Amino acid sequence: MGLVVQKFGGSSVRDAERLRNVANLVTDTYKQGNDVVVVVSAQGDTTDDLIAKAAEINPDASKREMDMLLATGEQISCSLLAMAIEKLGFPVVSLTGWQAGFLTTSAYSNARIRRINTERLQTELDKRNIVIVAGFQGLNRYDNITTLGRGGSDTSAVALAASLSADTCQIYTDVDGVYTADPRKVKNAKKLDEISFDEMLELATLGAQVLHNRSVEMAKKYGVQIEVLSSLERVPGTIVKEDVEVEKMLIKGVAKDENVVRVSVVGVKDEPGIAHKIFSLLAKHKVNVDIILQTPPVDGLQAISFTVSEDQKEETLAVLQRHSHRFPGAEIRCEDGIAKVSIVGAGMQSNPGVAATMFEALAEANINIKMISTSEIKISVIIDEDDADRAVSAIHGAFFDE
Amino acid sequence: MGLVVQKFGGSSVRDAERLRNVANLVTDTYKQGNDVVVVVSAQGDTTDDLIAKAAEINPDASKREMDMLLATGEQISCSLLAMAIEKLGFPVVSLTGWQAGFLTTSAYSNARIRRINTERLQTELDKRNIVIVAGFQGLNRYDNITTLGRGGSDTSAVALAASLSADTCQIYTDVDGVYTADPRKVKNAKKLDEISFDEMLELATLGAQVLHNRSVEMAKKYGVQIEVLSSLERVPGTIVKEDVEVEKMLIKGVAKDENVVRVSVVGVKDEPGIAHKIFSLLAKHKVNVDIILQTPPVDGLQAISFTVSEDQKEETLAVLQRHSHRFPGAEIRCEDGIAKVSIVGAGMQSNPGVAATMFEALAEANINIKMISTSEIKISVIIDEDDADRAVSAIHGAFFDE
Repeated sequence: MGLVVQKFGGSSVRDAERLRNVANLVTDTYKQGNDVVVVVSAQGDTTDDLIAKAAEINPDASKREMDMLLATGEQISCSLLAMAIEKLGFPVVSLTGWQAGFLTTSAYSNARIRRINTERLQTELDKRNIVIVAGFQGLNRYDNITTLGRGGSDTSAVALAASLSADTCQIYTDVDGVYTADPRKVKNAKKLDEISFDEMLELATLGAQVLHNRSVEMAKKYGVQIEVLSSLERVPGTIVKEDVEVEKMLIKGVAKDENVVRVSVVGVKDEPGIAHKIFSLLAKHKVNVDIILQTPPVDGLQAISFTVSEDQKEETLAVLQRHSHRFPGAEIRCEDGIAKVSIVGAGMQSNPGVAATMFEALAEANINIKMISTSEIKISVIIDEDDADRAVSAIHGAFFDE
Repeated sequence: MGLVVQKFGGSSVRDAERLRNVANLVTDTYKQGNDVVVVVSAQGDTTDDLIAKAAEINPDASKREMDMLLATGEQISCSLLAMAIEKLGFPVVSLTGWQAGFLTTSAYSNARIRRINTERLQTELDKRNIVIVAGFQGLNRYDNITTLGRGGSDTSAVALAASLSADTCQIYTDVDGVYTADPRKVKNAKKLDEISFDEMLELATLGAQVLHNRSVEMAKKYGVQIEVLSSLERVPGTIVKEDVEVEKMLIKGVAKDENVVRVSVVGVKDEPGIAHKIFSLLAKHKVNVDIILQTPPVDGLQAISFTVSEDQKEETLAVLQRHSHRFPGAEIRCEDGIAKVSIVGAGMQSNPGVAATMFEALAEANINIKMISTSEIKISVIIDEDDADRAVSAIHGAFFDE
């Protein structure tokens, strides 16, 4: 008995059959005596279809009008889910983002939730209605419709759970939980019963695409317990929360990110402030730099290498070229075809054997390490992209195979 | 220079090409120095597609959820039209029904506009924005989305024109005006330059499907001048207004309605109150009775015949059967396969030659008249459905051919 927020992604509601399945899941939760608030994404390819329609008319349409258009996707799926629940004979009401009280910043296509005015939601819950809310959308101070950008529906669900003090926030996806590695690629990948917010954040950043970072950050900030579950199989999922019981398994997962390139500024003078010069320049242009490596100087010249995501490669190179006069004599190089492989787990730093096991596994698989980066809860290596899948399997085997 | 409200139906915005055409029309009006507010329907078959989607999930879905679903159709077309206008480089903003301030009654799927809160609209017009409004929808007192039912977008446009004191309300359709008869069926059908609200109301009721009655009634009530125009051909249309200049042409049009059946209650006692008994019963069950014919009594028994629309046939017969004990000895009969053909024109009553010309045309075409009904501005006859097209041509020829 309690208040449960459930979120269903686009593939979970993609057609009439899937909608009926979700209606059963939702009403089963309601029948157990819970108040239920459901957040839905747009059906299947709806958003892509709407984007294509807009592109045919105006490829440079304003973000304000794009949000007006795209918000219809979730409005359609939430009314259809309400109809499926009506058919099962339960009291239900669907609400758009603004009806549910989502107030956002003004940034069209990438708005942030400022607050949720829960009055209407509370009224509907007091009537014992199941409430279906269109995710991914809200209203800004100009009474215009906004969308939340990538991972928006997850964020809608967590924000609702926080505002309503829900007992749990269930995120239903195609997979039935968080795994120690991508289960489609690594046999023996194991499902985790629990994982901490920080570990989940590292895994999400590293390319394990189960939950979007923004939603995990928000859950951590407001102490919302998240459950990652499958909408198709009724099996226990993975719980993401603040304090995770100490388990035997120190490492929580192995992740791979191929969306990465290495940029090097070679032959710069070895003088104070050179790193600051490069990275403040990139920060000003909103380039996110990940791993940084500075080689020791030879003849008073040194090289600074760093990784950025593939999408930011052009922008990074353009910025550096435009300001090349600030690095006289330096050459700018770029390397594609690399990947980042990481292991994540709390308390790793106080256990030196972890890094050794990881490097040993890579050496035995004859895989060359180009860069290394460590934090309190992760160790990442940059290797050749061609070696990435073998690297994940080798590392996973070293930690998880019995 | 002034304020122009323009309304475009579903076929006028059905694809990217048509949207571009409408964008040109709208911006041309704006370039002439006018403030422009545009009302759009959903694109082509969008509404039907959404209805089919809902039917697959729940054929008995609540009207509240159906309105939530269907309102997305106009939201999509109004944002797409705004994008097409942005591409032409004009300032534009799209608004949903609730953003545009449409407040309606609570009756889902058939709401009536209570009032329009024009504050937001005025603000946008003051910024010299072209304003695109989603037709057919509004918000009720519970902050739920409603739709206006048949002809809703026409009504949205006329209500906006009334609220904003627009100089004219242009309704763009597939045809380029109001004709003296259906131009697809009657050669020599002539386009009218002007027609009065009352004449237009009679023509609309009689099946000339250019403007919906609700919108004409509202235009008459608030004195909004309507222009019916083609969105594809740039030619003058027909102006619908209160006072029409006296023209040589007395008759404004010939219309046909095949959606009609005749019901007869035969063998009822000839006593006071029998007609009241029948028609108050039908009124209570919301059956709209059109033409009524009472035959003279024979041997103290009489017959009462009347016409109803085809859609109400089953309901009418069921009501009469259920209450047959109130008409002892009477037999209830029903006749399909009939049609109503009418001529409409103000001042007809004071010109006895009109009826004679109509009946003469029918007699010459060897068409039998079953019932006759007259009002100040129309004469209707009930005939065999098979004769209907011939009847329209014959009558049209008698009045309009040189």
